[in-house]
Amino acid sequence: MADTVTSEYALSTEPKLKAFVATVLEKVGVARDQAEVVGDVLVAADMRGVESHGVARLDSYYVARLCNGLMKAKPNYEIVRETETTVLYDADNGLGHPAGKLAMQKVLEKAKKHGSAFGAVRNSNHYGIAGYYAMMALEHDMIGMASTNSVKYGAPTFGRDVLLGTNPLAFAIPAGKEPAFVLDFATTTVPKGKLEVYKRKGLPLKDGWAIDEHGEMTVDPDAALRGALLPLGGFGTDHSGHKGYGLGLLVDILCGVLSGGAFGPTLPNISEAKEGAISHWFGAFRVDAFRDVEQFKADMDRELRYFKESQRVPGADRIYVAGEIEYEKTLATRRDGVPVHAKVWQGLEKLAGELGIPFELSR
Amino acid sequence: MADTVTSEYALSTEPKLKAFVATVLEKVGVARDQAEVVGDVLVAADMRGVESHGVARLDSYYVARLCNGLMKAKPNYEIVRETETTVLYDADNGLGHPAGKLAMQKVLEKAKKHGSAFGAVRNSNHYGIAGYYAMMALEHDMIGMASTNSVKYGAPTFGRDVLLGTNPLAFAIPAGKEPAFVLDFATTTVPKGKLEVYKRKGLPLKDGWAIDEHGEMTVDPDAALRGALLPLGGFGTDHSGHKGYGLGLLVDILCGVLSGGAFGPTLPNISEAKEGAISHWFGAFRVDAFRDVEQFKADMDRELRYFKESQRVPGADRIYVAGEIEYEKTLATRRDGVPVHAKVWQGLEKLAGELGIPFELSR
Repeated sequence: MADTVTSEYALSTEPKLKAFVATVLEKVGVARDQAEVVGDVLVAADMRGVESHGVARLDSYYVARLCNGLMKAKPNYEIVRETETTVLYDADNGLGHPAGKLAMQKVLEKAKKHGSAFGAVRNSNHYGIAGYYAMMALEHDMIGMASTNSVKYGAPTFGRDVLLGTNPLAFAIPAGKEPAFVLDFATTTVPKGKLEVYKRKGLPLKDGWAIDEHGEMTVDPDAALRGALLPLGGFGTDHSGHKGYGLGLLVDILCGVLSGGAFGPTLPNISEAKEGAISHWFGAFRVDAFRDVEQFKADMDRELRYFKESQRVPGADRIYVAGEIEYEKTLATRRDGVPVHAKVWQGLEKLAGELGIPFELSR
Repeated sequence: MADTVTSEYALSTEPKLKAFVATVLEKVGVARDQAEVVGDVLVAADMRGVESHGVARLDSYYVARLCNGLMKAKPNYEIVRETETTVLYDADNGLGHPAGKLAMQKVLEKAKKHGSAFGAVRNSNHYGIAGYYAMMALEHDMIGMASTNSVKYGAPTFGRDVLLGTNPLAFAIPAGKEPAFVLDFATTTVPKGKLEVYKRKGLPLKDGWAIDEHGEMTVDPDAALRGALLPLGGFGTDHSGHKGYGLGLLVDILCGVLSGGAFGPTLPNISEAKEGAISHWFGAFRVDAFRDVEQFKADMDRELRYFKESQRVPGADRIYVAGEIEYEKTLATRRDGVPVHAKVWQGLEKLAGELGIPFELSR
């Protein structure tokens, strides 16, 4: 973490940050147990190095929406349809994290009993990193999946309208001595935040990241921010952008259409303030339905090491497997503290002052 | 289809091609019902425009391996582990298509009864297009998933060794008046066959498709054919190649490690003739576990049209949704005949002669 903990960052700890988030949300009306779930998910993102989905959003997104009435502090999370192995929740425009955790817990319970299960949630809100929910399967020796649609930032292949969210997909698979395989990725080539970072640094974008408002590929961050993100695989079909577009649309269907929530035509753009328009999707199945868990985990270790120990291209330091970087960052932040960007830190301090709660985040 | 039906192609029909494949395989020892499944899957690929996975492989791959003993004509497809909602088959080194169909049928049967199900098959062989099996869910108003690992052609991000198959993922989701959403894609940027086509035409490759044997990106088809394919997203992480690599490894785990079959270190390279080293993975769940089917289908139509009718980038004729091109090709080949490349046609004629069976494929 040494590279990211510069003077721009202050250091906190996992328990302090989690408790702070919970206290803030409780103060604006959220039930303590639900507020704690949000703290858990947000701080997990910061510890995994996914700052964009961590405590940076607490004030500007979650607290703001709770206070201006765009999101309910005391929602009624309700099951609206259920079978032996499936469950559909309505989140009643509440916070997405408790809804997501509730749904994945129910999916895991059903999968434990029957072998496999799926779940969905509609009328929810931004639920943080999808990987958090997929990873809930790991301690049960299950394989977990999670996804969510999001406000729109991206264009389809050959299209110039902003129609698709960054729509992440996450899969978590337990291993033995190796860290679990955790793949959690936006189906656009890059997230919107990356355009903003490049703009701030005055750097040109890479080809295939974005188009301008006329639908032409651009490396100008300003033009791209007025345009749209491109799907994984980039512009057109030369680099198989249609595959990333297909994955993005798959996610919008599995989340939005399947749950009876908002999707495509009814999903908001970033500029629209729309209530509860986000939907999530979950799945899980038991490893021991297929193999003895210990054998599976031993083979997972062999598989992951096979990739990690293979020959590198010139100039590369290391070959990773999905989730490894985030796992190592989590260990490092647990040991060395959780870095919080100075601007975010100041924002949290201001928020604490406004809400009249103590601000004791320093490590 | 007019553009592909040139003098290079001869025209046959769906029933004639299917019957021919079945007769050929029966002649080399495969049970008639299993031979018919192979005909069904191979001809479906040709009709969907995926020539590389169609009758072109009948002689060189399937018949060759059945005759040289690398694949069993009379395997014992057996369930080795089963729960209410999961099933694991051992394909006993038989043809992959009947094993895949059997497993997906069992998954659909379990999902029909319980809401959702997963399946896997080990010790199998190349099973054609993954989309075929995912699409089996459609007539039951279910959402289907299918995947398979394959012999190795691809390198991981930052790696130069050939460690990964083209490892396709397929998802099929029913719609109403619109054709079903069918996403079926290799997790490498392009398939190996595309390098061969470019070599034949003397064209340079695109950046991000392949590396040479030293691990440097190359646009030279010969160098690429001695090197490795790159994952969806291309070289390194600038265009998120790590996401395609993650998806490729996910598939190898879900198929090979989960089933107890071959994976990574034990999976063959293209040059190795290894028995039954391929594994498959399947999943399905009921739409009506989440929503009334008619409402879901109406919303699917809205969703798909929203994308298709959106504004195009300059120079683009049309915006597609996944599976639409293949659906239209299927309708066209049903009406106009199924194109078979002249070289493939000659090969099939020679094969018919050798096996002493009639060759009456002309439309």
